Amino acid sequence: MKSLTRELWMNVDARRGIVSIHDDVEKLVDESDVQEGLVLVNAMHITASVFINDNEGGLHRDYDKWLEELAPFDPSPSRYHHNRTGEDNADAHHKRQIMGREVVVAITEGKLHLGPWEHIFYYEFDGRRKKRVLVKIIGDWPSEPFQDRRPACVWGVLNVWKCRIRAGFCCMFAFCIVG
Amino acid sequence: MKSLTRELWMNVDARRGIVSIHDDVEKLVDESDVQEGLVLVNAMHITASVFINDNEGGLHRDYDKWLEELAPFDPSPSRYHHNRTGEDNADAHHKRQIMGREVVVAITEGKLHLGPWEHIFYYEFDGRRKKRVLVKIIGDWPSEPFQDRRPACVWGVLNVWKCRIRAGFCCMFAFCIVG
Amino acid sequence: MKSLTRELWMNVDARRGIVSIHDDVEKLVDESDVQEGLVLVNAMHITASVFINDNEGGLHRDYDKWLEELAPFDPSPSRYHHNRTGEDNADAHHKRQIMGREVVVAITEGKLHLGPWEHIFYYEFDGRRKKRVLVKIIGDWPSEPFQDRRPACVWGVLNVWKCRIRAGFCCMFAFCIVG
Repeated sequence: MKSLTRELWMNVDARRGIVSIHDDVEKLVDESDVQEGLVLVNAMHITASVFINDNEGGLHRDYDKWLEELAPFDPSPSRYHHNRTGEDNADAHHKRQIMGREVVVAITEGKLHLGPWEHIFYYEFDGRRKKRVLVKIIGDWPSEPFQDRRPACVWGVLNVWKCRIRAGFCCMFAFCIVG
Repeated sequence: MKSLTRELWMNVDARRGIVSIHDDVEKLVDESDVQEGLVLVNAMHITASVFINDNEGGLHRDYDKWLEELAPFDPSPSRYHHNRTGEDNADAHHKRQIMGREVVVAITEGKLHLGPWEHIFYYEFDGRRKKRVLVKIIGDWPSEPFQDRRPACVWGVLNVWKCRIRAGFCCMFAFCIVG
Repeated sequence: MKSLTRELWMNVDARRGIVSIHDDVEKLVDESDVQEGLVLVNAMHITASVFINDNEGGLHRDYDKWLEELAPFDPSPSRYHHNRTGEDNADAHHKRQIMGREVVVAITEGKLHLGPWEHIFYYEFDGRRKKRVLVKIIGDWPSEPFQDRRPACVWGVLNVWKCRIRAGFCCMFAFCIVG
């Protein structure tokens, strides 16, 4: 099994903002050399999301307005108990539950296996500081019979031919063909 | 590592609708020959969801009413900026965020590992056209020591016995027992 | 590939409640001996969630109030069709969709790979009975060339040295170095 682990650093200079991380994830899949597998992409912070939807600015404005209706920003300690701790970001912890923490995407034949409009984004709900996104890739090359034994077979058969010893040949044959 | 990749085609003839894809996923898990692993099931379109909940028609009606309250269908460009692009499906992009893009389900002893009422559904929010669901299975048989070496051992030991050559036997022994 | 499967039993004695399952998941990751992989943690019941957010009581109170606003408890059959079946828990099926069924977390160098405040919780929406959470871990040690061949190499080379037979040596060499 192969794996690749990478943290991407984010620094959104507003309280809220949507950042495309699509190309970064695509490059890491290339780098991983995984042909068949899964990639997990998750916010490492609990006031941010990773989600897949349309790369269209109007929709992103709609999301922002909608999330503000569902869980309005309100730093006062009256609406949200969480803000009695001295924090002002209770709304961000709520918004992130709507948009989700993570996506899991298939890797097929070495590429992200996505539909035509699927695009991977980071959604910041409490920015103006450095935060991280985790990309974790696991998978492998498709298993082919004897795949990893072939170099040994070639080397062995050549060697045995040179030595002309029958026992070695039998042994090699078992190793290469059946093993 | 074993894997299986399959796209399921959907064509819901209403704007919205819930379709069971449970049996399809179950069959693909059988076909994959994976004993221990994960299956990812995700909508490949950004106006649809895959979710796990109750196979009960009343609940499905409740979801539809509830999602319509949370993000009403409104093709006009006034409520949703997204609909200024000429689209009318901004609500669908919102509803899908509530219901989610994907589920990841465990495979244990070759079967979907689910609780008693868990059932896998596709939720269409902008239908009347062909769309896809991706099923990606990764995993393997549980690893047992020497498991994949046994045929080679039997074949090799028989062969070496026939040749009665000690070097070959030593070699086979190393290969089968220790390797 | 290594895997570990475990069901955790929950029994929340109120209708709703949040329970930390963080330490349980952490221990199972240790037990699995997986160095690089993924852990899936999901509610096995459709009126409960597994989610990752802040370990802060005020926020948990906020979530409860918020979810009650988004999908109020109402056992009557008038608001929810689902409750015409004799059930009273339609609200729980809705709340769980907001908070999500599952989380997928990376395992890196044998540990949960989480951000500083990420904490794994079970959220019960229809308690006062025994329910389960599934923990499924898959992954492996990082692949190192020849790693699993080394004992065979040592054994084989020693043996061949004793026998002083060239064919055996050639064969071992192919097996250990190239194979």
